[in-house]
Amino acid sequence: MVIIRTIKRLRQVLSGYNRKGRTIGFVPTMGALHYGHLSLIKACRRENKIVVVSIFVNPTQFGPGEDLKKYPRTLKQDAALCKKEGVDIIFYPDAKEMFPSGYETFVTVEGLSRELCGLFRPGHFRGVATVVAKLFNIVQPDIAYFGQKDAQQAAIVRRMVRDLNMPVKIKVMPTVREIDGLAMSSRNAYLNPLERKDALVLSRSLALAKRLVHDGVKDIAEITGKIREMILRVPKVKIDYIAVVDQEHLMPLKKISGKSLIALAVWIGKTRLIDNIIIK
Amino acid sequence: MVIIRTIKRLRQVLSGYNRKGRTIGFVPTMGALHYGHLSLIKACRRENKIVVVSIFVNPTQFGPGEDLKKYPRTLKQDAALCKKEGVDIIFYPDAKEMFPSGYETFVTVEGLSRELCGLFRPGHFRGVATVVAKLFNIVQPDIAYFGQKDAQQAAIVRRMVRDLNMPVKIKVMPTVREIDGLAMSSRNAYLNPLERKDALVLSRSLALAKRLVHDGVKDIAEITGKIREMILRVPKVKIDYIAVVDQEHLMPLKKISGKSLIALAVWIGKTRLIDNIIIK
Repeated sequence: MVIIRTIKRLRQVLSGYNRKGRTIGFVPTMGALHYGHLSLIKACRRENKIVVVSIFVNPTQFGPGEDLKKYPRTLKQDAALCKKEGVDIIFYPDAKEMFPSGYETFVTVEGLSRELCGLFRPGHFRGVATVVAKLFNIVQPDIAYFGQKDAQQAAIVRRMVRDLNMPVKIKVMPTVREIDGLAMSSRNAYLNPLERKDALVLSRSLALAKRLVHDGVKDIAEITGKIREMILRVPKVKIDYIAVVDQEHLMPLKKISGKSLIALAVWIGKTRLIDNIIIK
Repeated sequence: MVIIRTIKRLRQVLSGYNRKGRTIGFVPTMGALHYGHLSLIKACRRENKIVVVSIFVNPTQFGPGEDLKKYPRTLKQDAALCKKEGVDIIFYPDAKEMFPSGYETFVTVEGLSRELCGLFRPGHFRGVATVVAKLFNIVQPDIAYFGQKDAQQAAIVRRMVRDLNMPVKIKVMPTVREIDGLAMSSRNAYLNPLERKDALVLSRSLALAKRLVHDGVKDIAEITGKIREMILRVPKVKIDYIAVVDQEHLMPLKKISGKSLIALAVWIGKTRLIDNIIIK
């Protein structure tokens, strides 16, 4: 395994591979790797000849006042995990390598970026789409892997790839959860022990919603009402949104029917967490 | 030579080529080919194994009230010219193939798109950058060719390629002119004989500017003043802009020094024409 810090060097190394019949798999991350990332890396390793993982805390997807500075950076541990999983290349550029002075090109997936988290984090998905477009152009993977936990990100990347005709296949892997149900996230590291307990309300309220649907409840307002009620029982909690939407277009549904995405964003103290489930 | 109308079919045909050591050259056009386009195609033919020309009148780069509908469409003639020049593939998609229902992803080169023509054609360069990004992803060329007549477009495409790390080399070829000096443009077809004569004022005023610089004039206001004076002698003319900028960033210069771009956009009757020269 090699750790590469510049675009030029990465291109040199990748062009040294004989790509004839061999695929490049790619897992873009912001580091602070957890089992969610590892599930992507494992799938990538199984399905490709060459495995590239990028670790880049992308400044363009953080808004003013967000957690860019305190976002966990754990390269040494990340590298050890990647090595163990058989990663071939870690691409670990700094911000100037990716966004040099004078940078001014952005990719926007317009409608999808305004929904859900987009309402609360303006510019976030523009930053995501832009850095993913850049990374795809740099790595030129055959397949790229994303996690379902970031459902909106996955929908936006899929849409971008389709709209811009990018020659890459997107695979979205299921959310990996702690044993008690909390969706794995690098931001879970911000939680103190009490908050860590409170954070269980996200997955529990989604489980409740699933039971309600299973029991025949189809009315969206009733479902979101019950979720809200459960969440608001936790002190010092703030709900950004609870939404029931279609998975591809993220448009609000009037009734549960077919495949629905129930997604929520909730502040536990000073930590903003997201989670979602797909109801079939 | 084949004419291909769908992205899927183009990909099939291109993947049939053995790319090992062979390059794909690409000339994106809106058709209505003239000698300016042919100079790009000739360079492309000289320098590449496979030559792809796209012909697509891109609706996203036309504003409301602009000439999308009346833009000349001359496929039969274009195809004959391409065949004569040894083009391998004409990619000729329709608008739905490129921008299907639900399309919503756009590429914006922010600063550069606001200058010069961008002030008068809001959204134009977003449409250009987006369609060029799409075409690059579809064709995956090694080298793509653009004309210097569209200086701002060339600067924006270069910037986009650099910013988004697109794996393509951009070549910008000199403006080709009619024997009397008028820059070749598909829009010249809109001019009636009298307007055709009046349109010479664009190249003539640029030639005047060149002489002034050659004679030692360095003051921008003096140069643009003389250009304006000459243009305004023509009846029914409207000036969108006369600008002296640096070629890469399109930022206004205070003095002629090093490489300067003198660019202008002028309405001759109902036809908007652009032209420019580089002063070294």
